Amino acid sequence: MPEEQLRQLMYGYGYEPHFVTVSDPSATEAAHRDFAAVLDTCIDDIHALQDAARTSPAGADAGATRWPMIVLRSPKGWTGPAVVDGNPVEGTWRSHQVPLSEIHTNEGHLRQLEDWMRSYDPGSLFTEAGELRPEIASLAPRGDLRMSATPYANGGRLLRDLVLPAYADHAVEVSHPGAEKVSPMITVGGYLRDVIERNPHNFRLFGPDETASNRLSAVYEVTDKVWQPRIEDVDEHLARSGRVMEVLSEHLCQGWLEGYLLTGRHGVFNCYEAFVHIVDSMFNQFAKWLKVHRTLSWRMPIASFNYMLSSHVWQQDHNGFSHQDPGFIDHVMNKKADIIRVYLPPDANTMLAVTEHCMQTRDTVNVIVTGKQPTPTWLGPEEAHLHVRRGIGIFGFAGSEEPGVEPDVVLGCAGDVPTLEAVAAAGLLKAAIPGLKIRVVNVVDLMRLQDSSEHPHGLSARDFDTLFTTSKPVVFAYHGYPWLIHRLTYRRTNHENLHVRGYKEEGTTTTPFDMAMLNQIDRFQLAMDVIDRVPVLGATQALFRQDLQDQRQRAWQYTRDAGKDLEAITGWTLDESSPDDAK
Amino acid sequence: MPEEQLRQLMYGYGYEPHFVTVSDPSATEAAHRDFAAVLDTCIDDIHALQDAARTSPAGADAGATRWPMIVLRSPKGWTGPAVVDGNPVEGTWRSHQVPLSEIHTNEGHLRQLEDWMRSYDPGSLFTEAGELRPEIASLAPRGDLRMSATPYANGGRLLRDLVLPAYADHAVEVSHPGAEKVSPMITVGGYLRDVIERNPHNFRLFGPDETASNRLSAVYEVTDKVWQPRIEDVDEHLARSGRVMEVLSEHLCQGWLEGYLLTGRHGVFNCYEAFVHIVDSMFNQFAKWLKVHRTLSWRMPIASFNYMLSSHVWQQDHNGFSHQDPGFIDHVMNKKADIIRVYLPPDANTMLAVTEHCMQTRDTVNVIVTGKQPTPTWLGPEEAHLHVRRGIGIFGFAGSEEPGVEPDVVLGCAGDVPTLEAVAAAGLLKAAIPGLKIRVVNVVDLMRLQDSSEHPHGLSARDFDTLFTTSKPVVFAYHGYPWLIHRLTYRRTNHENLHVRGYKEEGTTTTPFDMAMLNQIDRFQLAMDVIDRVPVLGATQALFRQDLQDQRQRAWQYTRDAGKDLEAITGWTLDESSPDDAK
Repeated sequence: MPEEQLRQLMYGYGYEPHFVTVSDPSATEAAHRDFAAVLDTCIDDIHALQDAARTSPAGADAGATRWPMIVLRSPKGWTGPAVVDGNPVEGTWRSHQVPLSEIHTNEGHLRQLEDWMRSYDPGSLFTEAGELRPEIASLAPRGDLRMSATPYANGGRLLRDLVLPAYADHAVEVSHPGAEKVSPMITVGGYLRDVIERNPHNFRLFGPDETASNRLSAVYEVTDKVWQPRIEDVDEHLARSGRVMEVLSEHLCQGWLEGYLLTGRHGVFNCYEAFVHIVDSMFNQFAKWLKVHRTLSWRMPIASFNYMLSSHVWQQDHNGFSHQDPGFIDHVMNKKADIIRVYLPPDANTMLAVTEHCMQTRDTVNVIVTGKQPTPTWLGPEEAHLHVRRGIGIFGFAGSEEPGVEPDVVLGCAGDVPTLEAVAAAGLLKAAIPGLKIRVVNVVDLMRLQDSSEHPHGLSARDFDTLFTTSKPVVFAYHGYPWLIHRLTYRRTNHENLHVRGYKEEGTTTTPFDMAMLNQIDRFQLAMDVIDRVPVLGATQALFRQDLQDQRQRAWQYTRDAGKDLEAITGWTLDESSPDDAK
Repeated sequence: MPEEQLRQLMYGYGYEPHFVTVSDPSATEAAHRDFAAVLDTCIDDIHALQDAARTSPAGADAGATRWPMIVLRSPKGWTGPAVVDGNPVEGTWRSHQVPLSEIHTNEGHLRQLEDWMRSYDPGSLFTEAGELRPEIASLAPRGDLRMSATPYANGGRLLRDLVLPAYADHAVEVSHPGAEKVSPMITVGGYLRDVIERNPHNFRLFGPDETASNRLSAVYEVTDKVWQPRIEDVDEHLARSGRVMEVLSEHLCQGWLEGYLLTGRHGVFNCYEAFVHIVDSMFNQFAKWLKVHRTLSWRMPIASFNYMLSSHVWQQDHNGFSHQDPGFIDHVMNKKADIIRVYLPPDANTMLAVTEHCMQTRDTVNVIVTGKQPTPTWLGPEEAHLHVRRGIGIFGFAGSEEPGVEPDVVLGCAGDVPTLEAVAAAGLLKAAIPGLKIRVVNVVDLMRLQDSSEHPHGLSARDFDTLFTTSKPVVFAYHGYPWLIHRLTYRRTNHENLHVRGYKEEGTTTTPFDMAMLNQIDRFQLAMDVIDRVPVLGATQALFRQDLQDQRQRAWQYTRDAGKDLEAITGWTLDESSPDDAK
């Protein structure tokens, strides 16, 4: 690119470019002098800009500040062999890989390599014995100034635990299971507000312009979004400094948080679930880095990378098929089990307890997926905390099992919408088939489904079999692609009786319950699945099954006629459908 | 962003910006006039540039051409309500979502909405009965000029079948299985060269500067890389026009090929396997589009999107852990089965037959993964063609089964390196345990593993059971993450006897055989797996198993001492290890 065009581009991005152009490859010393001079100029410029900013009136347009940028234009393969086998190499595309590829067989190549290496004057750097000369070695910094030892490159050394707000101050009191419909994301927004207030210097919230859309606006009660250009009167929550970093680039959010963690601080990246795939490849590299980092004894642990994914596949408001993709969970789970954690809190209190836990972890990637819409709060503060510590557990209030008797069927669930549908399905079954013993198992920590030999959070075979039985049908409603549950459980004793419903890439701009029906994880379908799978039911419950089909058809038709869900669905509560209360 | 800065940015990108700035929101007619005038100017400028290019000497610096760009700066929410509930809305961030959110309950909001809608003067557009006025309707284009009907937006109408070269002209003759070590990518490079020669106007090859690195350089015998800036004397294969589109941006390659297919042409995106994750999110949207496109009767089928992934996880030359990620296959398989195809050709001839097939498909996404290093060619031209048509098959030459007798063990394999290791493992076993009946099953079309009810390419239960038996151990060596094979087969009769080896995120910059050992898919490990899984072996073959362990340890140590693989590994051929030939 011509220098003038490059200058315009840098200007356009708001930088003041300084060019160092090496036009004569042999004039290395002149180039070094030029570069040193430009470095000095830039440092002076930076100091001048800083001084001006410190004395300028608050609110001045910081966006008008042009920070210096150095553009070094050196020949490709500079100082390497100029010509090889008659072809120009230095300064051309031929320097891209191995300029001398036949050193084992070609005497000329070998000699060129030797000349090249000798051009660095090794005699001035090394002794005859091949050791670095003491006067050179002494130039290297010592102690914490060494590149690998400086706390600025080994952020774990600077890491301080977060001062966390009290869980109890934010948890939702519930008189009975499902009584309070609360948004998990709004609840955690209040918690994050207090995290920011208590940790004003080492916590930041990152997101692609979705903090409000993901219902975390409470943070703006105590901080602002960082904004450098001009701030208009009409703008809200924008300031020169703040703890919220928003930019409509998932790539930038990912990179910012990675860097922030590496300097020993803490953070959360909140994102629409479907669009976090944009950083799949960046996540891969970070996960690979984290795996290796954990093996290096001198590297200190850093705070975990927390993804908080909402606006998820099942609740889309005015968005549609393009916004529906729960596959980031599948993507992260290909990486080393040691570093990957996935949580699907089914309600506000479990979301809070999961978040509190993740804020204290180190050297892992935590993926938390939950909804932003009001959802029944199934568990009270203490129960939710215990449930999250276990990672998996029986929702006794939702089932109908009796102590000492193995249940007839297990209804598994993971995710907020699937849990609601599973609890509602259990209610339908309990009301219609009083003798049926149903167990509802909720999974918050998805890795509990794996064997303890495969994942640090995995359940032992004994624990798994106790929860899911060794021979009874398991109907499982899952937030994401259903085959992931099979992948996690294929070695389990009872796997052949496991039937999973989940998102199977059917969607459009429609109501939440229609989304459930399109993908067959709705309460009616789950109840029908139970009838189909439990041997003692089947033909004996054909009339009830037909009734479920008809209820489903009515709900289906209503969405198409009215453009919304039936009041019987949206207004459903555990109380009304519970046979105990209905009597 | 200030206009001057934006102008510099556009200049930097090589455009000539024309600004239309609406400073007075109420002056809509003036804005329309301004915009129309700028449009006229730009069309004139484009014609002038085209005329100049046509008359300029060849080789002039096309990069210096500044194409016009229109920058329309209009108020956000332009013509919407100016103020709502005392807050300014038009021209502010408040226009981003729903400016009047309470029309059902707030009389003032409803009236503002009515005023806003009436500002479009509906009486001039619609009759009293609510129909579009004939004089307005008549402005709409007819026939092929309708937006949805024009062939330029429904590219399938313009699609012509490719004129394909003869498969036989490129297939490798092999005297016996594995006799010729040939690079699958170099072989297909010659084929693609002939595709380009025969189809000079409707086929392009896209890639992020990796066409040569992925060994497809043969295409440069008949075409060049498109390059608009100055072309230097030292440059090779660059020209103003050509069929190879290279840019080091996977995003741009993905977008270019999507657009090219949509205009009714054909193409291939060749990419390093690990880095194609960069376009995960773009792939998602394209796959969703394709799913819907197939349901619209008026949309004509387009050519399939072909990913050709090489430089894969098992063969990295000088690259390492960062370049190892076979998870794109997992990612694409979450999308609708109807449109997803995944092929893992084990050698040059199968690669050729797969490519020939993919070039003729419509409305699918084909992912082809194979290596660029010389690999034994297992099948002759006709056998390879039949194998690819089947998608899965028994490598009779590699096993030791007898007609009419069920094998003792099945060695499954998918991918070039896993196939080599599986064939070598079978050779080790045949030589040491003469009576053992081994079947080697190779999978080219990964979707064959799924049930026919789940994927159009799926095998019926009967066919699957015939190949993999219903009760014998299956040791499977797979190219990617091993759990994918479980996900595809968990419903199969014999699934509980299936044991899969694959990439488990262990890697570094090392030799190919060390990579296999690090992830335990090497021939020695596979042979040990067979001993461990076949009930009649086990304790009776402890000495042979110990010998395998020792051979493995020697190979392991040699890589660390010598920095390369043992000659016994790199020089291994089927002949030498085959007991039949050795006798």
